[in-house]
Amino acid sequence: MSGDIKTEQYVNVPNKGLFFVALGGVGEIGMNFYLYACDGEWLAVDCGVGFAGDRLPGVDMLLPDPSFAETIAPRLKGLVITHAHEDHIGAVAAFWSVLRCPVYVSAFAGEMLETRLDEAGLLGRVPVHVFEQGDLLELSPFEIEVMPVNHSIPEASSLLIKTPYGNIFHTGDWRFDDDPVVGNPADYKALSALKKEKILALVGDSTNVFVEGDIPSESAVKTALTEVFAGYAGKRIIVTCFASNVGRIESIAEAAEKNGRTVCLLGRSLWRVEGAGRAAGYFKGINVFLTDEEAAELDPSEVVYLCTGCQGEPKAALSNISYGTGAVKPVKGDLVVLSTHAIPGNEQAIANIQNRFIAKGIEVVTVKDALVHVSGHSGRKDMEKLYHFINPKIAVPVHGEAAHLYEHADLAVSCGVKNTVIIKDGDVLSLSSEKPEIIGEVKTGVLVKDKKQIIPLNAGILKQRRRMIDDGTVVATVVLDKKGKIVGDVQFSAVGLIEESDPVFAQMNDAVKSALETLPCEQRFEDRYIEDTVKSAVRKIVMQTHGRRPLVNTHLVRI
Amino acid sequence: MSGDIKTEQYVNVPNKGLFFVALGGVGEIGMNFYLYACDGEWLAVDCGVGFAGDRLPGVDMLLPDPSFAETIAPRLKGLVITHAHEDHIGAVAAFWSVLRCPVYVSAFAGEMLETRLDEAGLLGRVPVHVFEQGDLLELSPFEIEVMPVNHSIPEASSLLIKTPYGNIFHTGDWRFDDDPVVGNPADYKALSALKKEKILALVGDSTNVFVEGDIPSESAVKTALTEVFAGYAGKRIIVTCFASNVGRIESIAEAAEKNGRTVCLLGRSLWRVEGAGRAAGYFKGINVFLTDEEAAELDPSEVVYLCTGCQGEPKAALSNISYGTGAVKPVKGDLVVLSTHAIPGNEQAIANIQNRFIAKGIEVVTVKDALVHVSGHSGRKDMEKLYHFINPKIAVPVHGEAAHLYEHADLAVSCGVKNTVIIKDGDVLSLSSEKPEIIGEVKTGVLVKDKKQIIPLNAGILKQRRRMIDDGTVVATVVLDKKGKIVGDVQFSAVGLIEESDPVFAQMNDAVKSALETLPCEQRFEDRYIEDTVKSAVRKIVMQTHGRRPLVNTHLVRI
Repeated sequence: MSGDIKTEQYVNVPNKGLFFVALGGVGEIGMNFYLYACDGEWLAVDCGVGFAGDRLPGVDMLLPDPSFAETIAPRLKGLVITHAHEDHIGAVAAFWSVLRCPVYVSAFAGEMLETRLDEAGLLGRVPVHVFEQGDLLELSPFEIEVMPVNHSIPEASSLLIKTPYGNIFHTGDWRFDDDPVVGNPADYKALSALKKEKILALVGDSTNVFVEGDIPSESAVKTALTEVFAGYAGKRIIVTCFASNVGRIESIAEAAEKNGRTVCLLGRSLWRVEGAGRAAGYFKGINVFLTDEEAAELDPSEVVYLCTGCQGEPKAALSNISYGTGAVKPVKGDLVVLSTHAIPGNEQAIANIQNRFIAKGIEVVTVKDALVHVSGHSGRKDMEKLYHFINPKIAVPVHGEAAHLYEHADLAVSCGVKNTVIIKDGDVLSLSSEKPEIIGEVKTGVLVKDKKQIIPLNAGILKQRRRMIDDGTVVATVVLDKKGKIVGDVQFSAVGLIEESDPVFAQMNDAVKSALETLPCEQRFEDRYIEDTVKSAVRKIVMQTHGRRPLVNTHLVRI
Repeated sequence: MSGDIKTEQYVNVPNKGLFFVALGGVGEIGMNFYLYACDGEWLAVDCGVGFAGDRLPGVDMLLPDPSFAETIAPRLKGLVITHAHEDHIGAVAAFWSVLRCPVYVSAFAGEMLETRLDEAGLLGRVPVHVFEQGDLLELSPFEIEVMPVNHSIPEASSLLIKTPYGNIFHTGDWRFDDDPVVGNPADYKALSALKKEKILALVGDSTNVFVEGDIPSESAVKTALTEVFAGYAGKRIIVTCFASNVGRIESIAEAAEKNGRTVCLLGRSLWRVEGAGRAAGYFKGINVFLTDEEAAELDPSEVVYLCTGCQGEPKAALSNISYGTGAVKPVKGDLVVLSTHAIPGNEQAIANIQNRFIAKGIEVVTVKDALVHVSGHSGRKDMEKLYHFINPKIAVPVHGEAAHLYEHADLAVSCGVKNTVIIKDGDVLSLSSEKPEIIGEVKTGVLVKDKKQIIPLNAGILKQRRRMIDDGTVVATVVLDKKGKIVGDVQFSAVGLIEESDPVFAQMNDAVKSALETLPCEQRFEDRYIEDTVKSAVRKIVMQTHGRRPLVNTHLVRI
C-alpha cells in the first residue's frame, strides 16, 4: 500500500527447499493470501479481500495482486481456506480463473463460498472439497492436518502442514475458548503432542498481541446478554453484531428465549449467514428467526431485533433505525445493545449512531457497560500458551500491521523461540532449515475492486477521483468555425464544484471567449492550444471565486 | 447535523428574563457558539468551527449557522472568547460582518485571532479588546469575571457571568492542573468562594465525562519526556503534538534542553503558534527554536524535531517524515514520540504513520508506553470537584455529543445539583428562575466552508460530490444539424469513472447515435428529449461495464 518504488529484481523460487510467501496479510490486517512451496510444488492458504478505508473514495474492496500466484498456478496443489471471513475467503471467486486449483473448505465456509461463486457465475465450475476438522488433506508433498480452533465464526481451523523439511503450524485466525457456543474447545492434548512432532515454524495471527489479560469465553457473553435483556422486560430490545458470528447469533437467540423473546433478523447479510449456518447444521434447538413482517404481529416485548450495521454502515438496519426510518421504532426507555467492537476507523460512525439513540432517551449498552462482546482473536496469554504447547523453532508473525508483527516477534522470543523473522508481503522466506532466510522478493501489490472492474491501485481514475474531490472538475464545450473563431457561448459542467445557477459561469464564458480571441491565428487550428487556453482561463476564475484549481476537459467542436 | 425536518415555529426570545441559546457546540464536539440574553440584551461566548470528517468530501470546516445571531446583533454587547482553539475562535472572522460587536480575548488568543483576521482582510476593522485573566468585563446588564482555568492552550478562562437574575458559571474548556507548565493553577479559594455568590447555573464542558481517575499534570508529561529522551542519546528524536499546545511545546523544549538538545520546529502551524506565543510572552528562558536549515548544521543528536501532523494529516511534517520525504530522515533505532491522542476518526491515519516508522525499525513511543500526553479537559474527578466548589442550582451540559451530555447530567445529579437540563442547538433555555425551561427554538444549522465559499449543508454541489464518488459523472457533447440529426462522434468526459483509453467510449458513442436515430422527428428539436436519450443510453452501458449509474450532463450543440 506504500508508494515505494521497487527496484529489485524479482527472485525465482528454487525448485528445491521449503518456502513461504505472503501475497497479502502481512503489514496489514486483511487480504490474507499465503503460499507455501515445497520442492517446486505449491500450496495456497486463504484468499481474502481487504477494506479500502477513506483513502480510496468510492471503493469498497482491495485485493492482493495475484500475478505471482498465476505464475505458479500450474503447480498449485490446492487452496485451503482456514475460515469463512471475507478477509480469508472473499477473493476466491475473483481469482479462481487465475488459480484453477481445488479449493478445500469446511462445511460452513463452503456454504458461504457458494453464494459468492453463484454471484460470480462460477457455481459448479470450481472444484470445492468440503473437509471436516480433524481430516488429513493429502496434497503431496504437503500433508495437512486440519485442527479446530475457536474464532468469531464457526469451523475456524489451524493447519498443521507436514513437509519433508519439517512441519509448519499455520494458525489462521484463532483463540482458545474453553466454553464456546458453537464448535468445541481446542484439543490442548493434541496441540501439546505437537511438541513431539517438532514444529519447524509457527506462522501466526498477530491481531490481538497488544491485548493483555484473559479474553472471556463466548458463553460469558451469552450470560451477560441474558442479564442485560432481563433488565428491559416490556421494552423493545435491539441488538447488533457481526453478521458472520454464528456463535454470537446463537448467544443472542438463547438470551432472548430465556427472556421470553424470539429473534427477528433485520438485514440481508444476517439472513445470508442464517441460510449458510442452517445448511451447515447450526441454529438447531433455537426458535426459527422472525422476519420483520412476522415480528410486527407480536408485541415488541416478545422480540429481540438483531440488526446488521454494527460498524455504523450508513445504509444498514441499525443506522436506519437510529434515524427513525427502520422496521422498528424504539422509544424512550427501550434498549440498544452493541454486541461488537469498532474496527479502527469506524469509531465515529458508531458513536454517531449511539448518540442518535441516546438523544431520544434510548439506552445504549456497549462492551464498556457489560460483557456483550469478546474478540475472536487470541490475546497475549493465549499466544504464550500456544507457543509453550508447540515450541516452534521459528516464528513468522502474520495477520497484522507492522506494530503487531514486531510485538508478536518480541512475544515469541519471550516464549523461547530461537528464530523470529519479520517479513513483508512478497518476501520469499526460506524455511528449508532452522535458520529462516529471506532470499528475495516476488511481485506483489494491491488491486482495487471498483464495482465491476479490478484495477491497479495507481489507476488514473482513482487519482482523478481524489482530484475531483480536492480540486473539482470542469468540462467546457467550445464550438469554433472554419476560421477558428468561437461560435456562440461556451457550455460548462462543473458537477460537485459550482452550483448551476452560479453567475461565475457567465464570467468563465467571457474569459474563455476573450482568451480565445487573443490566440494567434495559426494556433486556433491546433487543438492543444485551444485546450490550454480554455484550461487556464477557467482555472484562473475558479481559483479566484472558489479557491480550487480544477481539472479542465475541453470538448472542441469544429464546424 | 441530522436530517430531521423542523416543523416548529421559531420562538421570539422575550425581552424580559435570562436565556441561554447554543447555536453550536451541543450534541457535537466543535462549533462552540453560545448566546446569553438578559432583558433583551445579548452576550456571545465563543464562535468556533467544527471539522467535517469523512461525510463531506473535499470539505475541511463546518460553521454554525449565524442567522439567529444576525437577528439579535444590534443588541449584542460583545463576544467573549474563552480560549484560542479553532472550535472556539475559528468562525470569528467569517461571522464578524454579521455580529459587528466588540470581541474580548486574552493576549494569546488575540495574537492567534490577528492572523485569521489578517487572512480575511479584516485586520484593524474588528474592535478587539484584550483582557487579562481576573479582569471584570462590564457589558451591562452582564458583568463578566474572567477566571483562569487550565487547558491544552494558554490563557483558558471560565466566565462568571453576573446578571440580575443570578450568576452563571460558563466553564469553557477546562481542567485543574496543580502544576501547569504555562499559566497558574486554578484559584480553588476563589472558586470555593463562589458558593456564597449563589451560582444559578453551570454551563459546562462534557468532553471527558467518561474518563475516570486523575488526569496527571502537564509537568508530569515534561518529566516523562525528559526520561524518554534520555534513553535515546545519540539518536534522532522526532516528536509531534497539537501545534497550539504552548505548554506542551515548552515541556518538549525543556526536556530537550535537559538532554543537550534544541527543538527544531517543522510545519507552518507550529511556527504560527511560536509567533503568537512569543508575542504574548511565552517561550521565555527557552533556546530559540531552530529552522530545519539551522538544524541541518547540527548533529541529529543535538536536536529534537517537533513536527505538525499529530492527527495523521496526510501532508503535514510527520507524515512526510514517515514516507521518507521530510526534512529529517530517521533510521533504525531512532525515536518518534506521539505526544498526542487520536481525535475520534483519526485512529487509523495515526496508526498508519506509526506502522511506517516501526517497519523501518524506528521506535515509536505513545501514551501507551509513557506519560507523553495528558488531556486538557477535566475528567469526572475534576468535574465533581468543581460542582462541589460552586454548587450550582442548575447544570447545563454543553461541549459534547449526546452520550457526553447525558452522562454529564447524571454526574451533576450525583453531585447534588437539583436541576439538570439537556438541550440541543437552537433551544432557548429560560434561566430566569431556578427551574430551567426550554421555551422554544430558534433557527440553527450547519454551514460548510467549501474553500472560499460558505454554503448550506444541503447544497446541491455537496450532494453531487457524493454522487460523483458513488455513481460517477459523464459529460457528453452531442452535435445536431438543422434536421436534428447527429453530426460526427459524441465527445465524452468521465473523469474519475472511466479511463480515457477504455473501449467503452466507442460503445457509448454507438449507443447514443442509435438511440438518437430512433428518436421521433418532432422530439429531436426539444433539448430535453435529446438529453434524456443520451442519459439513458450512457447509463445503461456504464451500469453494464462499470456497475455504476452516473450523473449524465449533455452539452448540446445545434449547428
